[in-house]
Formats: sequence, structure tokens, C-alpha cells
Amino acid sequence: MPKKIRLGIIGGGGDSLIGVLHRVASFINDNYEIVGAVFNPDYEQNIAFAKEIDVPTNRIYKDFDTLIEEELKLPEEDRIQVCSVLTPNFLHFPMAKKLLDNGFHVICEKPMTMDYKEAKILQEVHKNSGKVFALTHTYTGYPMVRQMREMIKNGELGKIHKVDARYYQGWINTVIHDKEKRSSVWRLDPTKAGISSCMGDIGVHAFNMVEFTTGLQVKSLLCDFNYLYEDNQMDVDGTVLIRMGEHVKGVIRGSQVATGEENGLAIAIYGEKGALRWEQEKPNFLYKMSDTEPVQIYKPGHAYNSELSLGASKMPPGHPEGIFDSMANIYLGAAKAIRGEKYNDGEFPTMEDGVRGMNFIEGTVASHKQGNVWVEMD
Amino acid sequence: MPKKIRLGIIGGGGDSLIGVLHRVASFINDNYEIVGAVFNPDYEQNIAFAKEIDVPTNRIYKDFDTLIEEELKLPEEDRIQVCSVLTPNFLHFPMAKKLLDNGFHVICEKPMTMDYKEAKILQEVHKNSGKVFALTHTYTGYPMVRQMREMIKNGELGKIHKVDARYYQGWINTVIHDKEKRSSVWRLDPTKAGISSCMGDIGVHAFNMVEFTTGLQVKSLLCDFNYLYEDNQMDVDGTVLIRMGEHVKGVIRGSQVATGEENGLAIAIYGEKGALRWEQEKPNFLYKMSDTEPVQIYKPGHAYNSELSLGASKMPPGHPEGIFDSMANIYLGAAKAIRGEKYNDGEFPTMEDGVRGMNFIEGTVASHKQGNVWVEMD
Amino acid sequence: MPKKIRLGIIGGGGDSLIGVLHRVASFINDNYEIVGAVFNPDYEQNIAFAKEIDVPTNRIYKDFDTLIEEELKLPEEDRIQVCSVLTPNFLHFPMAKKLLDNGFHVICEKPMTMDYKEAKILQEVHKNSGKVFALTHTYTGYPMVRQMREMIKNGELGKIHKVDARYYQGWINTVIHDKEKRSSVWRLDPTKAGISSCMGDIGVHAFNMVEFTTGLQVKSLLCDFNYLYEDNQMDVDGTVLIRMGEHVKGVIRGSQVATGEENGLAIAIYGEKGALRWEQEKPNFLYKMSDTEPVQIYKPGHAYNSELSLGASKMPPGHPEGIFDSMANIYLGAAKAIRGEKYNDGEFPTMEDGVRGMNFIEGTVASHKQGNVWVEMD
Amino acid sequence: MPKKIRLGIIGGGGDSLIGVLHRVASFINDNYEIVGAVFNPDYEQNIAFAKEIDVPTNRIYKDFDTLIEEELKLPEEDRIQVCSVLTPNFLHFPMAKKLLDNGFHVICEKPMTMDYKEAKILQEVHKNSGKVFALTHTYTGYPMVRQMREMIKNGELGKIHKVDARYYQGWINTVIHDKEKRSSVWRLDPTKAGISSCMGDIGVHAFNMVEFTTGLQVKSLLCDFNYLYEDNQMDVDGTVLIRMGEHVKGVIRGSQVATGEENGLAIAIYGEKGALRWEQEKPNFLYKMSDTEPVQIYKPGHAYNSELSLGASKMPPGHPEGIFDSMANIYLGAAKAIRGEKYNDGEFPTMEDGVRGMNFIEGTVASHKQGNVWVEMD
Repeated sequence: MPKKIRLGIIGGGGDSLIGVLHRVASFINDNYEIVGAVFNPDYEQNIAFAKEIDVPTNRIYKDFDTLIEEELKLPEEDRIQVCSVLTPNFLHFPMAKKLLDNGFHVICEKPMTMDYKEAKILQEVHKNSGKVFALTHTYTGYPMVRQMREMIKNGELGKIHKVDARYYQGWINTVIHDKEKRSSVWRLDPTKAGISSCMGDIGVHAFNMVEFTTGLQVKSLLCDFNYLYEDNQMDVDGTVLIRMGEHVKGVIRGSQVATGEENGLAIAIYGEKGALRWEQEKPNFLYKMSDTEPVQIYKPGHAYNSELSLGASKMPPGHPEGIFDSMANIYLGAAKAIRGEKYNDGEFPTMEDGVRGMNFIEGTVASHKQGNVWVEMD
Repeated sequence: MPKKIRLGIIGGGGDSLIGVLHRVASFINDNYEIVGAVFNPDYEQNIAFAKEIDVPTNRIYKDFDTLIEEELKLPEEDRIQVCSVLTPNFLHFPMAKKLLDNGFHVICEKPMTMDYKEAKILQEVHKNSGKVFALTHTYTGYPMVRQMREMIKNGELGKIHKVDARYYQGWINTVIHDKEKRSSVWRLDPTKAGISSCMGDIGVHAFNMVEFTTGLQVKSLLCDFNYLYEDNQMDVDGTVLIRMGEHVKGVIRGSQVATGEENGLAIAIYGEKGALRWEQEKPNFLYKMSDTEPVQIYKPGHAYNSELSLGASKMPPGHPEGIFDSMANIYLGAAKAIRGEKYNDGEFPTMEDGVRGMNFIEGTVASHKQGNVWVEMD
Repeated sequence: MPKKIRLGIIGGGGDSLIGVLHRVASFINDNYEIVGAVFNPDYEQNIAFAKEIDVPTNRIYKDFDTLIEEELKLPEEDRIQVCSVLTPNFLHFPMAKKLLDNGFHVICEKPMTMDYKEAKILQEVHKNSGKVFALTHTYTGYPMVRQMREMIKNGELGKIHKVDARYYQGWINTVIHDKEKRSSVWRLDPTKAGISSCMGDIGVHAFNMVEFTTGLQVKSLLCDFNYLYEDNQMDVDGTVLIRMGEHVKGVIRGSQVATGEENGLAIAIYGEKGALRWEQEKPNFLYKMSDTEPVQIYKPGHAYNSELSLGASKMPPGHPEGIFDSMANIYLGAAKAIRGEKYNDGEFPTMEDGVRGMNFIEGTVASHKQGNVWVEMD
Repeated sequence: MPKKIRLGIIGGGGDSLIGVLHRVASFINDNYEIVGAVFNPDYEQNIAFAKEIDVPTNRIYKDFDTLIEEELKLPEEDRIQVCSVLTPNFLHFPMAKKLLDNGFHVICEKPMTMDYKEAKILQEVHKNSGKVFALTHTYTGYPMVRQMREMIKNGELGKIHKVDARYYQGWINTVIHDKEKRSSVWRLDPTKAGISSCMGDIGVHAFNMVEFTTGLQVKSLLCDFNYLYEDNQMDVDGTVLIRMGEHVKGVIRGSQVATGEENGLAIAIYGEKGALRWEQEKPNFLYKMSDTEPVQIYKPGHAYNSELSLGASKMPPGHPEGIFDSMANIYLGAAKAIRGEKYNDGEFPTMEDGVRGMNFIEGTVASHKQGNVWVEMD
């Protein structure tokens, strides 16, 4: 009989959107209970937030190291089992590492690390830890994305020969066209945001979706960024040509200056026998195409869906579930893994997805900086 | 500072979908904690379910009456404050009544009662109780439905002159065309399901949406049902002509044999200056139309939305929220009312919506039975 | 070997939109040549228009009677074979009648006559004439509407049990809310526009689509009009409950005050096994639904379509054809009939459609005037 | 007063789809009359086809040279004024050249020539001829494409910084996966089809749309083709990175193996202040986006559209016009130019578009062959 998993939260306090997303996701399937946290580096705000959301304050710690230290003193049956790491990007790596080193499972926000090197180190740490590591590439939790993966795995498209993914947003328009703003926002400051803005933040999601749904790997890439202004050092737009094997090619398009686009992640996979098309903003509609038959619209909850997809929706067809439910599905998968239950490897993204993602981001930067040349992925 | 509201749950155990929906909705905004319940009339299953979802079993009661009795013995600061009533339809009325009589707030599933007479009684009880009563017409929780209400209230459509709402499903096709099945399913048994199937179950939602969004009331109606078979006594399809005032007319269409429709609730409101159109299966898109300007697509989370709408979405534009989030918004509104905080009267449906709904359902049945004649609503 | 049919045009001169539509439709499949006309009651304008569109003026007549008289003097192999009647509504009947009486085929705009009585007379005349009579219910010419008809005929939906059609426009908003305007526009003057505005002009199209696609007939109807203002005598909105046989019911909705709607004709047909849904403004997409399978989107030009549908598109899939092409398909069907070639009875609407339409319009008016009661159709 | 322009047709006989498209387009606005033709290289079929479509056979010539020779003998007021060149691709250049040399206006199908060199020669010939040359990039004739051009010209998007165009089809799937078929189809034979399949046939349309709508020019490009099989020598898929000026970048995607795509031309233009998105398969819907306002859907025929757009639709809003109407708009523009009337330079694509197109196609091939490097356009 299941018993709630003891969850710790690092970060995500106050108005944090990512905090709400993870907290709700952890509740949705009755699998987790928040027993400890460091919601905020400021201790008073930390406690205040715990009270606001009514989490007992006895295990609200003043900082991450104290959390580890104190939790380790608790008997194993009371101790936090898994920590969700929702802190600023540069802290993901050291925290995830220390958690794994100390025997905690980890649910980690994206980006997993600040660079590929860190990612490889963390991968090594994870390998030796025997613990579960889930990376919250949220969009893989949607039932129709999972359905794509299963249909492709089952050969319904035949051999894949082309992929086309995009992730278009427009929000950086509101800062980039003003010289003052663009020089002050942390997102466009390489010392704070890492080596890439557009690819690092969103392009990597599109990349992950491509590998997640097709089961194929990107072998090499060629990338062209757009910085929009001479004095801007971070990519706010980029197009990546990709090769996934002999005669299997594609394109990944990312933008933060695609004016008016909100959260425009979309993916199309073309195979010899059929194709699939999906858009994040209408997540409950999956289009299956062929050259000779009517287009088919798959929707969640129908018996014609795969088990992996059916396990990702809670309500009957026609009752839209959204991004909170998608994230909850990842938490559900992680819960199964933490409990040692059987699960489909599509139920949550892993360390390998994180390593691949960092490899991709660095590859795009390298390709662009070297003059838009082909760069091999590992 | 907020503190979680002590929630009791009646019904909703086991595989109950409505149970999941309410439970998740109560979690989503960190406002409620389940402290007591009767999930199931079978005590063993009741306890087993509590353990499965990890609710402490000390206040899992053997039946509803015991819950009331025992909770009243607890000091007020520990006692359940509000109960969610998720039991079979015929129990909604007696349970809600007893809860209000004993000083509990109530969150009640639809239909509020089995008939209009009960509804009027409950209304009286409620009036005298001073307690909060929230009826879970889930669809009013969507941000774009709330946006409709506010835009209409603000006069953006001018005088309303026409409404058109539908709620089409197809699922009864899977039972009704088989004589055996249609005579055995409880949904089509008037002794179990009440006087109406299609109008009672879903037509009433469309009715509620019409009154919720326009702020107008249906004055009279004329209805034609379809039973499909001579030996079937319950409406599985019906069309209702409505009048909402001088020269303000409309139509409400309901069906459970609209083959292939899943949860096809949709509403269009036409006024002198503009119109609004919304569909439940694509809940994050609201269409504003005029005779001379381009159609506009409103989406949640944008600053151009009303406060009521903005309060109903948690994430930035482009991150789809769904039906769980919609229900959570109703729970959020009820939480404000329970705590005595200020709230917009669009934040949750009330006793009055329940009374109007029963009046509507009985009106449709009366109109049909009398030969499709006009029937006044109170 | 085909030879162009000699076509006469009555009306449709100057800026007439209907004139352009018919003229282009007659050209599209290389079947017709305009050899004579009375484009305009004013002879000078008549001639001027002929010159403008470069039709030889030798057979441009000063009036309709002269056209008949003079054409009859010509040898049969030169004489106009078919006349398109595009004049104001009240002239359709006398002109069509005289044309048939004198041995001409007729292509007639809608409404066929001013009332049902005239329609019955014309039907009689036609029966005795042996001539082709095509009524331009334009929307039946779309390939996907024809596909609907064929799929239903082939039993792909099983027994039909529900239909839902609408034709919503908003343009009368621009005149009706101004007292002066609404009392002066000919459309709202019963002495000029006939007994009905909304049902007569557009509701009848929806009615025709229902009978065209299902192959069933409306047996009885109950209608409620909206006039919007006390001083307006013409329906600008109406909802019609229909019965098409035992337990086969439906609704036809028409409006000219559905603000922001342009030419919103749509139809949905629900049967035991499946359903079909189509919208005029996106005419190249036909949705087939079932309760258990993914929705399918049929598009023109694919081999999976019926012969009747394939014959109605000229280009490969993905090359949108529109309303001119739809009308052209009706002209094409009429051409086959005029030449005595074999054709599918779905290729053009006939006298029977016209008679049914007038019966329907009068039925809706009668039902409304008698207090929204059931009225039988013949 | 206008008088029909005397049109000659070269090619387009028999079952030719392009023949139908041009013939109908020439009829639609009453501007052209076919007076002479060489529909088919086989004289008997040529005559037979003329009879079938009822064109007088006296000026149906046995071949192109005879047409020129004989027409030149006719008095100028009887002589063909403009010829539509619909022959196999390799004949476009010599025929267009000879027509211009002999004083005929030309309407030419795409591709204008077989290579860039020919294009430059033809440009020179045209410059000296003083004649009208219209290239039938059909998609520029759609009213909403024209609306895009005008809105961008008027600065409604602010400075353009990103473009994204695609033209995806799937039909080559039906031949390419079979070794026999792919080695025999003329489309994949470089000796017959020219240097490029995908870019030459459809990518160039996307390119043209980008330049047509933005008014900007592609300065340089980097292209990667996919041939799918080692033994295939023609691109069936390709992605092109483009630069249109300092920090103005974009991507053009073409495919003939995008399984299930029919005629998937789409374009999105992003500027500082707004964006526009359009899809060929739903040509009557233009989406205007901004980061702060609701998306707006522009449709043809509304007064809010530009003059150029309004002149491209014949019917009121909501009456879908399609690809025949789009081509007709190009013929209409050419007619104005031929008559020496005033016209907007967006009314038909010209020699310059043809030259740019050939430059683009050769650029993509060069870039790919040189290992996906940047290539400058002239």
C-alpha cells in the first residue's frame, strides 16, 4: 500500500511560479508530503512562507547545508526522501550533487547544470548513488506527447526521416529594444544566466522533445543565433540544423523575440508511413497525418491511446488537463521510481536528458561562435 | 496570515473521478487540509482509501451522521469547517441540509438537490445558517469564462440580444442503442437518476453558464426532448428555446447522443456592439467578435484581462491550465468566503445558482411533457 | 464532344455580387457561353455593362419579354438554351415560369418564389416542361458537403438521430439598432422582401443543407423568431425545432444579429455509429467523429473521397477552392443535365429543393405567429 | 471602357491542372479572351482540346514558332496581346524570350528559367522590350497575403527582425522510398527537372513570399538539403538559414517528404511591435500578434483592410475565395499593366521576382554542395 513520499523543497518560495508548479504537481496524485524545506535564503521569509502555505515549520531550515545536516540526523523512516531543487540555475549542480552524495533522491529543475562539464560530473555522481534523479522537462508529461513517443516506438510512422521542432516566445521584446533594460536584465547577463539565453532556456526543451518522442539522438548540429543588437551578448533567437543519422535531418527553432508568441513549443515528426504534430498551447490534440488517409486527431483518455498516455490523464476525454497535470505526471513517475515500483522509462526525464541537454546547448554556442559550422554531439 | 481550512470529504473514494477532482482542487492553492472524511459507505474500503491517499484515519468515520456527531464534540478550532459533498445525487440535499443546520460550510457537487422543492427548502436553511455554500459548477472557474462575465458586465458587448449555448456529449450512444443496456444503466433509470438525464446532468451547466456570463436571467423556456426509444424514459437530448427579457432570446442545446462529442460545452453571447464565444475543450481561448473589427483572441494571464480572470490563472500566458485548475479556482473563492475575506461574486457559484438550476431542469421537463409549450421560470 | 451551352443572363449587371458569382461559375468548367442577356432594366446601363464585360451586344435585350420573344425567333441551334435568373426576388417566379413555358432550361437564384403557392405552381409547370431547373443553393456545391451526403448515404454514420444546423450572420446589426434605418431598408420591409428575413434568406439554406446531406425530410417544425424591436416586422433571428421522423430530431438556428458572424453556416449530423461536422467558412475540412476512434479530417481531392466529391474539386489536396468553385460545381451539374448526360442527383439542387424551402419558410412563420406551435410540413 | 485582352495560351492542354488554373483565372474578372493557343505539341490533341473547351480552332497553331509567325501577320488590333506560358520548365526561358522579343506581353509559369544565367538574360530582354512580364507566384494573389504586405509597409510591425517560412508537402513519399520509382520519375531526374527539386519547386515560393511580404531582400543564405537516399540526386527536403540585413535573420523550410502535408505553405513575420502569421491552406485568416494585446484575426473583404487587399476579393466577408481567385488576382493586375492602367506593384510578381528566385535556388544548391556554408545573394 502506498504511503506518501517525504518531500523536501529547496527554493520556490514567495511568488515563485516554479514553486507553485512543483508544489501542486507533488500534491496532485497523493504521492508526496512536504516535510522539510528551505523556501527562501532569507530565514524570516522562509518561515513566513511555510506558514502561509501551512507547512509545519519545525523542519524549515535556515539553509541548504543545514537541511542536509539535520535531516541526516533523523531516523531514515522520518527523513526527507527526495528533494526538489528549484533554486537559481547556478545552484542546481552543487545542490543536486550534495543531495545524491548524501543519499537523497532528487527532482531537479532545468537547466540541470551550468555547463556540460558539470553535467558529466553529476552523471558520474548519480551513477554511483543508486538514487533516482528526475529532471523536470515538464512538457514530456503531457499525455499526447507520451502518446507520440509510444506510437513512434511502435513503428506507426515507419522510419523517421525528418523532425521539426520550435519553441517561440516573444517576451524578450519587452526588454531588448531598450538599451538600458537589455544591459541590466539578468537573463541577458552571461555571468548570471549562463552561456545561452534562448537555446539554454527554451531551445533545449525543443531538443529534449525531439529525442524524447523519436527515441533517436541528435548526432551533429549547425546553429545560427541572433543577438539583435551589437551590445547584447546573449542569443535571443536561433535556428539549429540537426542530423540524427544517415539521411535523418531536422531543424530546431528557438526564439524569445517571436513577437506575440507566448509559449509556442511545437513539434512535428515525419516518417515514411506517417507523421505526428503537436503544439503545447493546445496540448490535448495530437495530429496523425499520412499521405493517403484523413488526418486523425488523437485526444487523451481514449482507449485507443497507449498505456503510457492513459496513465497521464485523470479525467475522461474532453476534460482538459494542463501544465500542472503534466508536471504532476513527472512527479508520479518519479514516485514510482523512488518506491521501486515498475515504470515506463517515458514517465520522467532523467540524468541522461540533462547531460544531453547541456551537450546540445554548448554545441549550439560552439557552432555559432565558430561561424555556423557543424559540431558533433557526444 | 492564512491557515489551511479544515476540510471534510463525503464520498469520492476509490476510483471516483469527482473525488480526484475535488481533492486536487482543494490542494492547488494551499488553502485546505483534509482532516476528516467518509470516503465510502463501506467502512473497510473507507479506511483503506484514506490510507492509500495518506489521510490520517483517526477522523475517518463510518458514516455521515457519525461524522457530524463526532466532529461536533471537537473543539471548534479543530473541527471540520467545511464539507465537500460528493455522494450520489439523492444524498446531496439531506447532507447539505444537515451540514448547514449544524454549522458547517458546504461545498456541494451538482445537482444540488433532486428537485426544485428541495432546492427551495435548502435555500431557506442556508439563509438562516450564515454559512458559505458553494456549488461546484466547475466551468465557471475557467479564467476566460470569468473574463466573459466581466467584459459583459463592463458593457463591452452593449445590450445583449441573443445567447446560444450547448453541451454536447456522445457517450450515451455506447449504451442506449442496446435494449438490455439502456434498461439497466442507472443513468437512464428515473428512480435513481432523477427526472432528467441530459438536461439534469449537462444542460443545466449550459444554463448556468448563460446566467453566469450575462448576468441576465432566463424568464421562460420551451423545450423538446429526444428519448430515442419508446422504452426509454429519460431525455438523452434536448433543445430549449429561452427568453431572457424583451427581445432577448436564445437557445440551449444539450445532448448525450451527439456522437463523438466528448465534453462539448460551448457558449456564444451576442450583443449590440460585440460578441463573445468560448469552448470548454479549448478553455484558454476566448473570441471577441464585432461586425467591423478583426476578431480578437483573449488568453489567460495577460494584463488586458480583468482582475477576476487574472486571479484564476497561476502561470504566465501560454501555459495551459485545465479543469483541475478551474475547480481549484472555485475552491479558492470558497476559501475566501469561509475566511470572511473579500471576494468577487463570480468566484464561486452559490445556493442561488443551485435553485435556478433545479427550476430550469423542472421547467424543461414540464415544457416537454405538456407538449413543448412555454413555461415560466420563477 | 462537348460544346459550350448557350447561356442567357437575366439581372446581375453593374456591381451585383450575385452577377459576378454566376458569371464566373459559368466560365469555370468551360461549359457555358453567355450569348444573350438583360443585365439591367435600364437599357443604357444594360448595354454599357455588356460592353464592360465584353459580351456581344447584339443579343442584349431591352427587357425579359423581348429576350424571350427574340430568342424564340432564332433557329434552335443558335437560341439561348438556359437562362440564369438573378433578378430581384419577386421576379424569380414569373420569369422562371415563362422560361420553362417557352422551352428554356432555368438556373434560378434563391428564393425560388415569393411563397409556397407559387412554388407549387412552378413545380407543376416544370413537371410538364421536360426542362432542367437548377436552384442555386450554392453551398451544396462544396466538395466536402457532397462528401457528407455520400458518406451518410453509404451508411457510415448508421441511423441518423440528430441534426444541428446554423446560419449566423451579424450584418443586420449595422441597420436594425437605428430606428430610421430599420424602417427604410428594403430587407426589413415585408412588402419588398417577402414574409421572412432571416429564415427566408439564410435559414432556408441551413434547412436545405440538412435535407441535402441526410437524405431525410423535415416532417414538422416549431419556430421562435426574434424581431428585436416592436416596430420591426421581419424576423432577424430564429430558432427552429425540427422532427425528421420517429425520434429523429434537430434544430436549425438562423440569425442576422449574431454580432461578428460573417457567413456562419455550419452543420453537424449525428448518427448511431458516427457523426459529421462542417463549416462554410472553412469549407475544405470535414470532421468525422465517433465515440471510440480519433476524429478524422477529410479534405478535398483525396482518393478516399467519393466520386461525387472528387468531381467537385479541380486541384490536388491542399489547394483551397472556394465559393466560386462551389457555384461552378452546380453549373457543371446543370450542364450535364442540359446535355442529357448522366449525373449524380447531388450535383445540383432542383425544383423539389425550392418547393421544400418555401414550405419550410412558410412553416416557420406560421409556427411563430401561432405562438410557437408545431406545424407539419407537406 | 475596358475591352477583353486577347490572350494566347502555350501549353496547358488535356488534363493539365495548371492549364485549368490559368484558364479560369483569366476568365474570372472578365478581362481576357483566349484567341489563340498551342495547347499541346501533338496537333490533333491540340485541336481536340480546343474543341473540348470550345475555343475557336482557326488560331490554334501547330507549334509555338508558328503561333508567333502567324500572329505577327495579323493586324495589331486582332493580334494576341499576351501569352501565358505553361509549358514544361525548360521551355519557359526560350519562349518568354521570343515572345518579348516579338512584342508580346508574357504571363509565365514558375520557374521562370532553368538557371540564374538565363534569368539574367531574360531580365535584360524584358528591360528592352517595354512589355509586361508577370510571373505566376500564385500565392501572392491571396487578399490576406497582400494585406500582410501593406501592413508591414505601413510599419504596423515596426522593424522586422525575424522571418520564418515553410513550404511542406509529403507527396514525394509515394515515390522516393521505392528504388525503381525514384530513379524513373522525371521530378527526381536532374537532366529533366533542373538543379533542385524541393527548393526549385516549392522552397522558392516560400522565399518569394518572404520578400513579397516584408519588402526586404535576402542577403545571404546557408542551406542543408536532404536527399534521403544515396542514389537520389535531387533535394527532397531542405532548410535554409537566411540573413536579410544586420540582425534580421530567418529560416526557410521546404520539404516534399513532410508526410501528410499537402500544400503547407506558411509564413510568419516578427517585428519589434507586432507579428503576422498566415497559412495557405486557410488563406482567409491572417493572425496579427503582439506581446501585450489579444491576437487579431483579419479576414478578407472588411473595410479595415488595405486597398490592395480589398481589390483582391470579390465577395463579402465569410464567403471563402480560393486559389483560383488568387491566381485571378494576378491576372487582374497584369491586365491593368497591359492596358497601361495604374496598379499597385503588389498586384503581380515580376521579372525581378523571377531573377531573385533563380538566384535563391542556385544559392541553396551552392551552399549545400560546398558543405553548408554561407552564400551571398546578388
